[in-house]
Amino acid sequence: MEKAKFISEQNIKFLLHDVFNIESLTSSDYYGQHNRKLFDMVLDETLKLAKDLMWPILEEMDQNTPILENGEVKVNPAVREIMRQCGEGGWISAGFPEEYNGDQLPVLFVSACRFIFWASNYSAGTFPDLTAGAARLISSFGDQNLVDSYLPNMLAGKWQGTMALTEPQAGSSLADIAATAKSTDKGYYHLSGNKIFISAGDHNGVDNVVHLMLARMEGAPGGVKGISLFVVPKLRPEESGQLVSNDVVVSQIFHKLGYRGCPITELSIGEQGDCRGFLIGEANKGLFYMFQMMNEARIGVGLGATAIASAAYYASLDYVKQRTQGRNASHKNPDLPQVPLIEHADVKRMLLFQKSVVEGSLSLLMQASLYADLEIIAPNEEKEKYSLLLDILTPVAKTYPSEMGILSVSQGLQCLGGYGYCKDFSLEQYYRDARIHPIHEGTTGIQGQDLLGRKVLMQNGKAFDLLINEIKDTIKRAMSLNQLNGYAFKLTQSVDILYEVTDSLIAIQAEKGTESFLADAVLYLELFSIITIAWQWLKQAISACKSLDSCKSKSAILFYEGKLSTARYFFHYELPKIYGLKMSILDSGDVTLDIDPDAFK
Amino acid sequence: MEKAKFISEQNIKFLLHDVFNIESLTSSDYYGQHNRKLFDMVLDETLKLAKDLMWPILEEMDQNTPILENGEVKVNPAVREIMRQCGEGGWISAGFPEEYNGDQLPVLFVSACRFIFWASNYSAGTFPDLTAGAARLISSFGDQNLVDSYLPNMLAGKWQGTMALTEPQAGSSLADIAATAKSTDKGYYHLSGNKIFISAGDHNGVDNVVHLMLARMEGAPGGVKGISLFVVPKLRPEESGQLVSNDVVVSQIFHKLGYRGCPITELSIGEQGDCRGFLIGEANKGLFYMFQMMNEARIGVGLGATAIASAAYYASLDYVKQRTQGRNASHKNPDLPQVPLIEHADVKRMLLFQKSVVEGSLSLLMQASLYADLEIIAPNEEKEKYSLLLDILTPVAKTYPSEMGILSVSQGLQCLGGYGYCKDFSLEQYYRDARIHPIHEGTTGIQGQDLLGRKVLMQNGKAFDLLINEIKDTIKRAMSLNQLNGYAFKLTQSVDILYEVTDSLIAIQAEKGTESFLADAVLYLELFSIITIAWQWLKQAISACKSLDSCKSKSAILFYEGKLSTARYFFHYELPKIYGLKMSILDSGDVTLDIDPDAFK
Repeated sequence: MEKAKFISEQNIKFLLHDVFNIESLTSSDYYGQHNRKLFDMVLDETLKLAKDLMWPILEEMDQNTPILENGEVKVNPAVREIMRQCGEGGWISAGFPEEYNGDQLPVLFVSACRFIFWASNYSAGTFPDLTAGAARLISSFGDQNLVDSYLPNMLAGKWQGTMALTEPQAGSSLADIAATAKSTDKGYYHLSGNKIFISAGDHNGVDNVVHLMLARMEGAPGGVKGISLFVVPKLRPEESGQLVSNDVVVSQIFHKLGYRGCPITELSIGEQGDCRGFLIGEANKGLFYMFQMMNEARIGVGLGATAIASAAYYASLDYVKQRTQGRNASHKNPDLPQVPLIEHADVKRMLLFQKSVVEGSLSLLMQASLYADLEIIAPNEEKEKYSLLLDILTPVAKTYPSEMGILSVSQGLQCLGGYGYCKDFSLEQYYRDARIHPIHEGTTGIQGQDLLGRKVLMQNGKAFDLLINEIKDTIKRAMSLNQLNGYAFKLTQSVDILYEVTDSLIAIQAEKGTESFLADAVLYLELFSIITIAWQWLKQAISACKSLDSCKSKSAILFYEGKLSTARYFFHYELPKIYGLKMSILDSGDVTLDIDPDAFK
Repeated sequence: MEKAKFISEQNIKFLLHDVFNIESLTSSDYYGQHNRKLFDMVLDETLKLAKDLMWPILEEMDQNTPILENGEVKVNPAVREIMRQCGEGGWISAGFPEEYNGDQLPVLFVSACRFIFWASNYSAGTFPDLTAGAARLISSFGDQNLVDSYLPNMLAGKWQGTMALTEPQAGSSLADIAATAKSTDKGYYHLSGNKIFISAGDHNGVDNVVHLMLARMEGAPGGVKGISLFVVPKLRPEESGQLVSNDVVVSQIFHKLGYRGCPITELSIGEQGDCRGFLIGEANKGLFYMFQMMNEARIGVGLGATAIASAAYYASLDYVKQRTQGRNASHKNPDLPQVPLIEHADVKRMLLFQKSVVEGSLSLLMQASLYADLEIIAPNEEKEKYSLLLDILTPVAKTYPSEMGILSVSQGLQCLGGYGYCKDFSLEQYYRDARIHPIHEGTTGIQGQDLLGRKVLMQNGKAFDLLINEIKDTIKRAMSLNQLNGYAFKLTQSVDILYEVTDSLIAIQAEKGTESFLADAVLYLELFSIITIAWQWLKQAISACKSLDSCKSKSAILFYEGKLSTARYFFHYELPKIYGLKMSILDSGDVTLDIDPDAFK
């Protein structure tokens, strides 16, 4: 039986307080009602709920997957209890303003809670999380009628929220969305079409499902400029308060590699001509609205990926501390007892890799969350700065944890040897669960295009410059610490490389056009990400150094020394990867553009 | 329904004939009875068996896994037919000398057959393959009595062979094997102990199972020097020819992430005190003997990993040619039709990555196989050369395909987006199946220690020098081709880096000792492997260039141009990774050695 250890509370508190100083947010009007004691209390409650309710059914939800029976999707009975407790306990509404009865907690703090739930059980944590995202979209752009009709039940965990974008003929290509919306003179639209891969698109753990659905009005412009956003409930509330069927039918559920506790559905909409959708905001601006939820979901994917990698890390750590095997390279005498696996340098390397990915990713996600908070509380003239910083970090915060999370879980599995491959331990499930993340909410390829083709260039590189300034601020602080100025110097060199590569790519765009410019966008994203994570490790190292100065408890000293060792690992083992990436990007030989598709066979 | 396309016959023939010139082997006495016509015929038959018998049950064997019922392991009924056909058709004995009724086919050719079977269905191909390996061990080191008692039924596919090393308390640490063998005065030993993770350790697709088992005689020295090798049948043949139970009991089968069609078992040996084992060769030399089978199995792991990656590559290629999605970066007009995924540069990059891993790995495995053949046919004074070359390449040929195969399959899955994550396509199974390879037959960590700690140093670096000479020969040939001399130059630089890193590590050993020397052995293995694969790509590029000169058929021209593009991809996108690896190894900061195990929590 594995221990219910899937996150480090000490690490979460270190990030919230030491690195990102969450209490400074409480000097604002908006977050003024909170304080450390309250944060600690809610964190305790979150951990308790995760441990008691979600973690115990991790394996069960993987084994007994949702089934579609007589048009109804049946999920694990615990889902209803999870939704109820997350609703009543205020987790779904945690980040909502007080006007919606939310706790108006900082995004930074809400991210920590999302991370904890997902680390305990990724599928379980997704039901309330999707609901919160959909509710926020309605609250941001929906009219008062929509807010009144849907928010209370969603925030209470009684109704599920979803994000219904994808269609069979248009996966990543949102321009090709074909679901239609015909206007009526009754204040609603008739929706029809098909949606696939809709997470929690229907299930019996709630009383209703509320889809946030993209569709195209008659006569709308082609492409993404003709997409509108609708609220499409499974059961529509009549004026009487009664719920009646809204002609949204689950035509199949997908059977998947992992993430099996959450039903991923195909929906047929309006087959009987009686599906009503309610427009959110203005016509043809649907994609703009949807991107609020999408960006939150992308940060969510990063958090979910980091969460699974965190759980895998602690599972592998637990194993290698207990399991003895072999002897150190310099003490091969077979008469000596075997040593715990953790004594081997190569095992420690695999642990450091995991720790550097997990804690580096979480730090970046907290950084992005803090920018979201600062955008909220900053005076108007400074809001754009934080908005741009969040924008440029979003593809990185989605992708680095997703891509590296897979490798991190894989190293966790490797620590267990043959047992890692067996169902006796949770690593094999984590390995399957984690693989979804580079795919959903925009594949890694899409994120690369977003970063290089949009975010780096926008407003003449303003977001890029702002981010570099933030990194340079950290470098400056590290320069004054003897222990860290070597790393500050390495990061300075890395930033120079980022400039060099970015400038070269922009020159390529001018010279050879967009295809050449974007051909290696994924490699650029990788290089950009590694430097960004190095920045986060330098930040953490600064906080650790400062805390070590005044620290007396042995366990705290070990914690901070662990931080410094992991920063050291990152700078020595991960950061050097940018040198190969730079060479590839600057000298790609255009091979991916030139090759004839028929030459692959 | 996916096409039965899991390998490229054209590529196999290109490697056998153009690159490695298999026909030159037939000028030897040993292989003199063969010719191209025969090779082509057997290859056809192999493909037919793979397509008709193994491929159709790929998914079925994954879904309906072996079960343990009343002490008997039940596998898919097709396993019996597979063993029968592989036995009667001569595949199990294909590489055996004619004195055992084998076809005495070159290792190079047998490797191609192993690759084909595994690509069609990894679990299915393992049953006959393990049997061949065990039979070869008996034929090499067993006495005539053992040969007569076991070989005919094994080579006929009636009896399964296994490799029984691993024990619960001694996974990778063979020095700690504890199974015991008590001598009797009747020519056999009483065996007792426990073995775990024994592939095909029992099943009802054969009439008997023959374990090649490591155990320790009473009073034997500690560690690996006290291990002996025994034949331990499930049912022992009495003099009368009758088979009687030999007290080998399956205590459990393991439930696994993938590779599910093959039962991986735990065995209890001699619980009733009636398990007889028959010594192979001399006492206490068991590990030496076992390593014959183990080395063959390590090449087999490389082939199996490459095979799964090959099947995944063709499945993803098939998908991206048919599936339309989005438009090219420079033609975003939504009124234009969507283009096939293969038109996108990033998709072509993912395909090139897969192709470079699959065909680069297969080329290396063929190279290793050729050295095995040359060792057989070379005059005595040259045998050692080829033996050393095979020795130093074995950890690379095991590990590079295993580690990169996982990433390659993962990119194949990514090409399908959400569908890649679903059971509607085979990619998710390949993703699970492939994950075994960095674990079994010596983990990647063990292979790193083997390469750097043993193979690079042995005989004062003789194997290392021989390999570098082989690489330099290829460089010299490439230098004379205009199209390739740029790559020849890059490979020369890479070899210089390999020298520099190797020399530095040897200096570290002298200065700081073995722990420091071996701490980054896995990174060294990765660097070594990338250079080795670059060498293989240069070899393939030379052959492609030469063939292109005289080539008229359009499909052949596309094939050779595909080879050149993939070589180009490898030199531009994969080879540069050695620069980061070099920096990490030379400047590791000893972080993995220094960190306190308690600092991980």
